[in-house]
Amino acid sequence: MRVAFLGLGIMGRSMAANLVKAGNDVTVWNRTTNKSVDGAKVASSPKEAAANAEVVWICVSDTAAVEQVLFGKDGAFESVRSGMTVADSSTILPEASERFAVRVRERGADFVDAPVTGSKIAAEGGTLIFMTGGKDETIQKLDPLFKAMGKTVLRIGDNGKGLAAKLAMNLMIALIYEGFAEALTLATKLGVDQQALFSLIQSSMVRSGVVDYKMPFVEKRDFSPNFPLRLMHKDIRLMLEAAQESGVALPGLETVKKIYDQAHADGRDDLDYAATLLNVEELSKGK
Amino acid sequence: MRVAFLGLGIMGRSMAANLVKAGNDVTVWNRTTNKSVDGAKVASSPKEAAANAEVVWICVSDTAAVEQVLFGKDGAFESVRSGMTVADSSTILPEASERFAVRVRERGADFVDAPVTGSKIAAEGGTLIFMTGGKDETIQKLDPLFKAMGKTVLRIGDNGKGLAAKLAMNLMIALIYEGFAEALTLATKLGVDQQALFSLIQSSMVRSGVVDYKMPFVEKRDFSPNFPLRLMHKDIRLMLEAAQESGVALPGLETVKKIYDQAHADGRDDLDYAATLLNVEELSKGK
Repeated sequence: MRVAFLGLGIMGRSMAANLVKAGNDVTVWNRTTNKSVDGAKVASSPKEAAANAEVVWICVSDTAAVEQVLFGKDGAFESVRSGMTVADSSTILPEASERFAVRVRERGADFVDAPVTGSKIAAEGGTLIFMTGGKDETIQKLDPLFKAMGKTVLRIGDNGKGLAAKLAMNLMIALIYEGFAEALTLATKLGVDQQALFSLIQSSMVRSGVVDYKMPFVEKRDFSPNFPLRLMHKDIRLMLEAAQESGVALPGLETVKKIYDQAHADGRDDLDYAATLLNVEELSKGK
Repeated sequence: MRVAFLGLGIMGRSMAANLVKAGNDVTVWNRTTNKSVDGAKVASSPKEAAANAEVVWICVSDTAAVEQVLFGKDGAFESVRSGMTVADSSTILPEASERFAVRVRERGADFVDAPVTGSKIAAEGGTLIFMTGGKDETIQKLDPLFKAMGKTVLRIGDNGKGLAAKLAMNLMIALIYEGFAEALTLATKLGVDQQALFSLIQSSMVRSGVVDYKMPFVEKRDFSPNFPLRLMHKDIRLMLEAAQESGVALPGLETVKKIYDQAHADGRDDLDYAATLLNVEELSKGK
């Protein structure tokens, strides 16, 4: 298929590369022009990238960025024609995605929200999990592209529902990791050997992929970014914004947000979100 | 072995039954006298139960109860002799357990903290996980008893360290479940189908034994107790007490405690701790 891929960040770059590998005709665009993908054409604007595309795939950082690449000056929307599909893998506000879908449909094209879960490594290996919101037939049409980038395509519901599920998922990740960080801090202070605690975690019902993945890094105190803290922080703000709009109280998440606020103030934005462990530890210093 | 088993609650009763099944000579005692275990003798006091025992195994509800069955009037301590072992599977303050160990050792006996993780079903099936604190040789001597009641015996460290690990574990359970409850509440309000969310959870890195176990009950809104809310509430207070004593800040857990406080005020003590989902939902009512 002829695909315009917009946004070559940590995830987008690997996703676009996997689309090329699968034999698609890919044109990429990125906000900063120093990025490219082997075997893909490079366009100088979203409009140019989308000019000849059957599918426009977006993977940028936030709601404003999606709005800009789609509806801004030289945005992809200027090239959107009937029969085309716009798929968005950015994590943005579900309600905004629903609005974008309405505008794209008015052109006779269709719109799908398809955020992903999985690490940088899953993006590279083509083993992402997609959570999709939109029309069944449109999502089916995209199947060869989903298969090139991911291992699982979950149908969640109508437009915006893929994003709602993604936010719920990241909410769980944030609280699972906070639980691990507090448990490790308490156990360590009470004299429990870290290895003994890790063995216990791995042999019990609290075991999860989230903590399995982080433990070796925490052991080495290696907080180099896999999922950068600033992105999880942004997702947490999105969750609370969505909660606010829909009248939902999320007390645990509100507390976790304060820890991310502090980590941000401490200049930890570009570390992995696992570095919030440092903030949990530092909170104990004054006690 | 000749075992005195003190405390026939949800967990203790099944544990004592498994000791009997494995061929041990078991004498049971319970605070209320309406409980017994097939094939076990019944004593009228901890002292009487322990009179002829090689091992005294305790499984009661809190620090005060352990102190009472051990050191209170007609307590087991009155029968403790040199060479005997006292094992405590109650979840209590690590520091208190260390003190009890010192007193028991002064008699030439030994003391082990051996709290468990696993549900009522794991207790029945003899598949509990024990987290042990104490001397290696003493824990080794208890091995046939551990094997009769559990599938795994984890050595954590010295006295009190089994309990410290147990508190860390339950802290993780409390935050994992809170994350699930908030994610479910948000996703549902945003229009995500519950089954779609459950499938997503089970196919992704947030999957854990904690949530796997609770999902079918949450689906049926069945909050009958497996791990009663009042016990998790008690454990949370213990974690915060241990944190306070050792100068550790646990902001996520502090927030979760408020939810349990409210659940307690709402008369939900004897439901499963999964019923805190109702409190998360109700918090949104006023928004």
